[in-house]
Amino acid sequence: MKAAVVRDKRLIVADVPDPAPGPGEVLVKTLACGICGSDLHALKHADRFAEAYVRADGTRIFDFSRDMVMGHEFCAEIVDYGPKTDRRLPVGTRVCSMPVLLRGEGRQTIGYSNDHPGGYAEYMRLTESLLLAVPNGLATEQAALTEPMAVGVHAVNKARLVPGDTALVVGCGPVGLAVIAALRVRGVHPIVAADFSPRRRELAVLLGADVVVDPKETALAERWRATTVAFECVGVPGVIDQMMVSAPRGARIVVVGVCMEPDTIHPLRGISKELNLQFVLGYDAEEFAATLRHIAEGVIPAAPLVTGTVGVDGVAGAFEALASPERHAKILVEPWRRA
Amino acid sequence: MKAAVVRDKRLIVADVPDPAPGPGEVLVKTLACGICGSDLHALKHADRFAEAYVRADGTRIFDFSRDMVMGHEFCAEIVDYGPKTDRRLPVGTRVCSMPVLLRGEGRQTIGYSNDHPGGYAEYMRLTESLLLAVPNGLATEQAALTEPMAVGVHAVNKARLVPGDTALVVGCGPVGLAVIAALRVRGVHPIVAADFSPRRRELAVLLGADVVVDPKETALAERWRATTVAFECVGVPGVIDQMMVSAPRGARIVVVGVCMEPDTIHPLRGISKELNLQFVLGYDAEEFAATLRHIAEGVIPAAPLVTGTVGVDGVAGAFEALASPERHAKILVEPWRRA
Repeated sequence: MKAAVVRDKRLIVADVPDPAPGPGEVLVKTLACGICGSDLHALKHADRFAEAYVRADGTRIFDFSRDMVMGHEFCAEIVDYGPKTDRRLPVGTRVCSMPVLLRGEGRQTIGYSNDHPGGYAEYMRLTESLLLAVPNGLATEQAALTEPMAVGVHAVNKARLVPGDTALVVGCGPVGLAVIAALRVRGVHPIVAADFSPRRRELAVLLGADVVVDPKETALAERWRATTVAFECVGVPGVIDQMMVSAPRGARIVVVGVCMEPDTIHPLRGISKELNLQFVLGYDAEEFAATLRHIAEGVIPAAPLVTGTVGVDGVAGAFEALASPERHAKILVEPWRRA
Repeated sequence: MKAAVVRDKRLIVADVPDPAPGPGEVLVKTLACGICGSDLHALKHADRFAEAYVRADGTRIFDFSRDMVMGHEFCAEIVDYGPKTDRRLPVGTRVCSMPVLLRGEGRQTIGYSNDHPGGYAEYMRLTESLLLAVPNGLATEQAALTEPMAVGVHAVNKARLVPGDTALVVGCGPVGLAVIAALRVRGVHPIVAADFSPRRRELAVLLGADVVVDPKETALAERWRATTVAFECVGVPGVIDQMMVSAPRGARIVVVGVCMEPDTIHPLRGISKELNLQFVLGYDAEEFAATLRHIAEGVIPAAPLVTGTVGVDGVAGAFEALASPERHAKILVEPWRRA
């Protein structure tokens, strides 16, 4: 099958073997798969990234010396069932799934694996018991946003919100937008969102922000003043410490942005204001399913996030385009698209 | 009166004016005052310390260009009442107080102030409404430990303990020992305590640790394995990150040690395990009063902490001696002691 492959830490288009579904697994056609900032990180900080992805026993989950097909934000269509499957969904059903396989040898990742291709290819294998049928009528592009939006739902669940909480979201890339949408589902008001990019501030409003600010014009401390919890959705060194400087006493900072580099903080800033830092990652099965429901019901307005679509040949170019916050939020890969 | 005075960022013995109690205040004789690690920090990192101690409006609380009498862990005796006082306690009563004055112009610190002498001097002024009479029969030296032990009570209150939690305490100086004592009051078991110093590990057992370990012999990760919450009671750069490396998934780290310098962390370590960092400082009035009760009732066995006493002339030497963890935990200053 045709795939965008990571080889020698670069993206190329290549033919790779079709995956075969094992026991309890299904073969699916990938209909659409979002490009995640983590995939950009993975290529930019390859060694550090591979080092961070280790199993409980310390062994690495993947290895840049072998081919890898990334892509973990997908909507797909059932093509065939492997052995020992219940076949409760008809072939042709559109499905979403958390990007993992539940196998005898343990939980395996999809999208960061040398053995299990992700969504930047025509086919994937998925675990049958994890499949969620896409509700009738929901567009494939929106269903493909379940995974990134679930990250926001999880981050907000980990924020230990109490009545009266008001939120600041720093950074309005896909992660920040997902947090904004999840805060809106929880009825938090006001939601203040900050980003240097006017385009991203527009998207923040569409996703549910009540107030948007340009950090060039409004000091972080001023934005924080009326809020009790803030979400770090930037993921570059220095942002956590800057948020600690500006935070009001007793504030909670939820770190959702993934900073791959060492970072400097001044603990005294945290101590003198008794700040709380909650680092978060991913989501659980319940949060993932709830997110798909929220998107299908229009409670999470995911559509504005998609700012472009490409075929397998366009993945490398899309990675470059995503570096500019003015042009894009989420680019979807459609592996069956022919230019 | 005779006092150990900070002048030109050095400790000297000098005669300073007796404090006069204002409205709602009492004049007290300082019976005993513990030397706190923060006081050592204040001299070592004078500029950074003064910078960190600012009011809500950004103005500095004290200034190293003027004399300052430190000391905020005290037990004292009522000598005289100022105007507008209720005089509910007889002159001669031994009292403790949080080291603050409640004044018309706002809350003022005692011990980090150019205007209000702390406990390294013969007299202080205190706010009448904050006085707590020392329960009959409790030794003055133990009552003087109320303040440092309250720090542990507060840290444990902020740890959001749930049934089944087990704790690791990293660092067994006075702060770590206070945390151990407070964990014991809350019935947490086991309490695992780690320190390089055999003497401090002995103290940890006396204060309530169930297991003590020498970090030279036991890797931090091994100590963490069976615990869900850890207390950082060292306060030097690198310890937070090291605890993040070793922490089990979902762990909480309560940062009680006061690190005055910039510190490097790897956010990815926090993210991949969804760690929580809670920075804490001080205590509230209720926690302070509860701590004095716990000491008086023997629930917090404070006595072993006192490893030395000095007069005002001995303060500078005691600061030097406290650098060695083998010799000392808490040294008390007795301003009326004559060599």
